[in-house]
Amino acid sequence: MSGTELAATIVKETAERAAEFERRTGTKPCLATVLVGDDPASVTYVKMKRNRSAKAGITSRHVPLPAETTTEELVATIRELSADPAVHGILLQHPVPAHIDERAAFEAIAPEKDVDGVTMHSFAAMSFAEPGFASCTPGGIMRLLDAYGVDPRGKHAVVIGRSPILGKPAAMLLLARDATVTVCHSRTQDLPSIVRTADIVVAAVGKPEFVRGDWIKPGAVVIDAGYNEGNVGDVAYAEALAHAALITPVPGGVGPTTIALLLEQTVTAAFAAS
Amino acid sequence: MSGTELAATIVKETAERAAEFERRTGTKPCLATVLVGDDPASVTYVKMKRNRSAKAGITSRHVPLPAETTTEELVATIRELSADPAVHGILLQHPVPAHIDERAAFEAIAPEKDVDGVTMHSFAAMSFAEPGFASCTPGGIMRLLDAYGVDPRGKHAVVIGRSPILGKPAAMLLLARDATVTVCHSRTQDLPSIVRTADIVVAAVGKPEFVRGDWIKPGAVVIDAGYNEGNVGDVAYAEALAHAALITPVPGGVGPTTIALLLEQTVTAAFAAS
Repeated sequence: MSGTELAATIVKETAERAAEFERRTGTKPCLATVLVGDDPASVTYVKMKRNRSAKAGITSRHVPLPAETTTEELVATIRELSADPAVHGILLQHPVPAHIDERAAFEAIAPEKDVDGVTMHSFAAMSFAEPGFASCTPGGIMRLLDAYGVDPRGKHAVVIGRSPILGKPAAMLLLARDATVTVCHSRTQDLPSIVRTADIVVAAVGKPEFVRGDWIKPGAVVIDAGYNEGNVGDVAYAEALAHAALITPVPGGVGPTTIALLLEQTVTAAFAAS
Repeated sequence: MSGTELAATIVKETAERAAEFERRTGTKPCLATVLVGDDPASVTYVKMKRNRSAKAGITSRHVPLPAETTTEELVATIRELSADPAVHGILLQHPVPAHIDERAAFEAIAPEKDVDGVTMHSFAAMSFAEPGFASCTPGGIMRLLDAYGVDPRGKHAVVIGRSPILGKPAAMLLLARDATVTVCHSRTQDLPSIVRTADIVVAAVGKPEFVRGDWIKPGAVVIDAGYNEGNVGDVAYAEALAHAALITPVPGGVGPTTIALLLEQTVTAAFAAS
């Protein structure tokens, strides 16, 4: 099953649940999308997420803010959305402009509306296997592994990247599923040797074709969570394909499942609030 | 510098700050110690922590509860302490009896009073290098590394154990200091081989002399965070000593720094609240 097929399955189930929610409550699940500034990539992402939401029967309330919005203004806006019973999920499109304290903005999202899984609470919940929402990309990665029939238990998973919404939560979710987990990053020495010991590789670096084919142990599972300009992932796909047992392509791998998780979690939040 | 010496240094500075707090406010910093049941080891630990507090000029308010206390009762008690302005730090001695939801009890501790670093908020703060209190044992381990002049940057740290208050936060603190971090546990395959690749080993398993000498790479730094019956650590000390560049003994290594951190963080909480 490809990432695109898995995502379609998740979205189909989500649309059925959204319709059930509307039957029960008379309203659709509602995702607030907050966009600061007009970075073209961010504008495109938000548009795509809103379109997918609409197709799944989820209303989106779009909150565009000027690039010069202050941290205080953004926090106040997000707090209002957190307090608004008509809003079930909140997505703050990131990165936000550099002058804004992104962490403060994320933390203004009520945990029960954190359907993008960016708050400290959601991170700790993923880490401790407590109830909560997953960061969407790491959550999507775990669903892909399940769809592929890859059980992380006892496997050595190497995560390349340590961002708060991708590398770190991916590591914690793999650990919760009993993988032995190594987190690598820009300061890691002899990265290729470490990756060569991995049964599961998660590439979340943000550098095109950074992971080379000869870093991949024969038979390893390679998850490419990168998405770089020109539709290129973090893994040199053609090279890695020669070694890996399974590898996710870019596009059509992790990306679609990320959005599918966002929609699924929005509907879950709506039911929990009703 | 031994763990005992480092702890003495931290406690001395903490006592000076506690005295300064008392001069400024007319009251001593106050640590609430909550003990459920009468497990002999827990009784001893709490007594030791209260004695050390008193010597450092920190009042402790002891709250002993019967073994049959319910989760709801314990949560209510801790919430009261969280709301009480006379209490600066809260220690819930763990483990609590098995019928209690320990996570619910921990989460009743206000983050600004979580001087033992057990809440989800504190864990995420350690993970994201945000302001907050460290879990005391992992925090103590980092101070030991600093005292030894061991810079984790670029080193391969292998943490054996993944508990929410020891293995996981230790991994996150090492990662924040730019180590490449591997988390191993009971499901890890071929643990000795992985430990042999470590520049820094943190043993947090809770099994006496579990880590053998021939698992240690020559020149590695070995931190033994175990404390088992009969004053025995998780590392076979005599064996490992032949390979390691540095190794913390049990007792007198990690243990004393753990309590020192608890006292230090209590005084920090008192100042922050004043």
